[in-house]
Amino acid sequence: MNSAPQNAALEDVKNSLAGEGSPSVAVIGLGMMGRALAAAFLAGGRTTAVWNRTPGRAGELVAAGAREAASAEAAVRAADLVVVCVRDYEAVHEALDAAAEAGALQGRVLVNLTSGTSQQGRDTAEWASAQGAAYLDGAIMMTPPGIGDINTVVLYGGAPAVYAEHAATLALLGGGSRHLGADPGVASVYDVAMLGLMWSTFNGFLHGVALLGADGIPAKEFLPLAKYWLGAIESFVELYAGQIDAGDFAAVDATLETQLPPIEHLVEESRARGVDTTLPEYTKAAIEAAIGRGHALDSYARIVEHFRG
Amino acid sequence: MNSAPQNAALEDVKNSLAGEGSPSVAVIGLGMMGRALAAAFLAGGRTTAVWNRTPGRAGELVAAGAREAASAEAAVRAADLVVVCVRDYEAVHEALDAAAEAGALQGRVLVNLTSGTSQQGRDTAEWASAQGAAYLDGAIMMTPPGIGDINTVVLYGGAPAVYAEHAATLALLGGGSRHLGADPGVASVYDVAMLGLMWSTFNGFLHGVALLGADGIPAKEFLPLAKYWLGAIESFVELYAGQIDAGDFAAVDATLETQLPPIEHLVEESRARGVDTTLPEYTKAAIEAAIGRGHALDSYARIVEHFRG
Ligand SMILES: NC(=O)c1ccc[n+]([C@@H]2O[C@H](COP(=O)([O-])OP(=O)(O)OC[C@H]3O[C@@H](n4cnc5c(N)ncnc54)[C@H](OP(=O)(O)O)[C@@H]3O)[C@@H](O)[C@H]2O)c1
Ligand SMILES: NC(=O)c1ccc[n+]([C@@H]2O[C@H](COP(=O)([O-])OP(=O)(O)OC[C@H]3O[C@@H](n4cnc5c(N)ncnc54)[C@H](OP(=O)(O)O)[C@@H]3O)[C@@H](O)[C@H]2O)c1
Repeated sequence: MNSAPQNAALEDVKNSLAGEGSPSVAVIGLGMMGRALAAAFLAGGRTTAVWNRTPGRAGELVAAGAREAASAEAAVRAADLVVVCVRDYEAVHEALDAAAEAGALQGRVLVNLTSGTSQQGRDTAEWASAQGAAYLDGAIMMTPPGIGDINTVVLYGGAPAVYAEHAATLALLGGGSRHLGADPGVASVYDVAMLGLMWSTFNGFLHGVALLGADGIPAKEFLPLAKYWLGAIESFVELYAGQIDAGDFAAVDATLETQLPPIEHLVEESRARGVDTTLPEYTKAAIEAAIGRGHALDSYARIVEHFRG
Repeated sequence: MNSAPQNAALEDVKNSLAGEGSPSVAVIGLGMMGRALAAAFLAGGRTTAVWNRTPGRAGELVAAGAREAASAEAAVRAADLVVVCVRDYEAVHEALDAAAEAGALQGRVLVNLTSGTSQQGRDTAEWASAQGAAYLDGAIMMTPPGIGDINTVVLYGGAPAVYAEHAATLALLGGGSRHLGADPGVASVYDVAMLGLMWSTFNGFLHGVALLGADGIPAKEFLPLAKYWLGAIESFVELYAGQIDAGDFAAVDATLETQLPPIEHLVEESRARGVDTTLPEYTKAAIEAAIGRGHALDSYARIVEHFRG
């Protein structure tokens, strides 16, 4: 009669041990990222089932101890924690709908690490709930080679208790992971904000590589200076974050007015080398507009108003 | 008869001592940056004369031991090494033409740390030569609060021997400084390449701040994740620099195809919050064009071709 609580206590003890006794895991989707996720679970001693739409991608994982399931449903049924990481949310449904309809998600935890929008995250949380599954919506802030590193960050939204229960297993994917809140859409907003920072930084770097390349300077000559400069930029960004939250934009480093000649130089040097000027023209227009609104002596942090709705 | 070589040897010994005996310095232009430069020379024990078009900005520097000159010409005549840092190259001429016409630059070293184009650097080198002055054209890769730091970088172009002679004094402005070559235009090209990286990164950060801000999340919540992510981005950029120089773009981390759904999410989340979508639309178009040229399985490094002339 009271065997259920006793069993639960026993489960707790078992779950507190690493490897054996820890929740078993399924990884649905064995693209570049899914393979890295499965490898990290295996490295952490978790019993891991894997499945991919197209067969033949599980070889190395099977050699490392994974069990390749014959269907998504079989993979799901083999696991307590089901991690899905496929191209997009349509693919999530193509991969999991049949298993869900067969009731396989019932009582399981679905962790969706596929990139999506916040609305897709919320919709999928509702859908998972209707299948009887707990749900976490995550965003992986790392490329596959960095999965499993001590400081790698995966962001999560969803019920705090569900996250807490599986934090130790999920930490195998990245030691810097964190839960952002109960909203299953929150990780996606951070995700696109961070990806936007990434693409913008990439574009700035590639623009510079193109400029210097036109003068015969290889990327490897630019790299150490770009790395140094990214460190400096990080410190400027830290300053600007404080200014934005305080709503006080007075420059203590470089005024917008001071940045007008250099942005014109960037446009000019780009044009002289046939390098696309769209990005510097955009920045120039934003600086000019802010100066036009009377902010000549403010820092670049003032440009946040340009982006705001 | 042989007193000249003896004097030269004596000068060498004197110059090898810090402070007294080191070349005296003039700083022309006491804006945010000029004041930081003068303060760093004073901190390094250099005899420092200062001048600014608008009087009244030298107070703290005079208190720290600077001599305020009554004219640019007087400042120049008081120094071996003349550092000019004003708004732009027109201002350089407005500040220095009278002194040059009076012959004051003759036999001196002019170090121009004003932001300009490579063509302006080359033109000013010719002009300085006509005034009998040696010339270095520099680009300061730091904001004023970081001037004088051990790892701060100032980039220089111009005669290697002139740089070598004054490297110790110039290192007072930034311990990571370096000479890029004899071309007095080279520092400006690196400068705009690095500034382009900076503005792009700023724009990506501010875009993210605007996105999260629309959901009530302050910049200080985004900051630690953005800093973590900039470190990751730096490692991706390092990978891409190697791919670009090798001309081999095959993705080992994330394919362009994989990045198409997330860039669409960024556009969508931005639009939903009234945040300007120009930058993500630009990135999306560049990714789509590269995929259209058959590069779906390449990394983002392939986008360098979009920027190239
Ligand atoms: N790579 C990164 O750096 C990175 C970083 C953070 C987040 N992510 C996210 O992680 C997810 C996967 O990325 P990835 O790099 O692994 O991409 P990938 O290498 O292109 O793999 C895509 C995966 O999605 C599967 N898939 C696509 N359409 C499907 C469908 N209709 N039904 C079932 N499965 C389908 C593919 O299966 P097949 O083998 O059958 O085609 C494959 O397993 C994406 O959401 C991506 O944005 C990636
Ligand atoms: N601040 C930074 O973070 C930073 C970083 C790297 C490089 N730089 C470069 O350093 C230079 C100076 O920047 P800053 O931040 O010091 O700017 P700032 O605070 O605006 O100061 C501008 C300086 O230029 C002088 N000036 C302007 N027009 C002049 C003219 N026609 N004749 C004589 N002097 C004139 C000003 O004199 P008045 O006081 O008489 O107006 C003032 O001393 C610029 O080329 C900038 O791009 C700045």
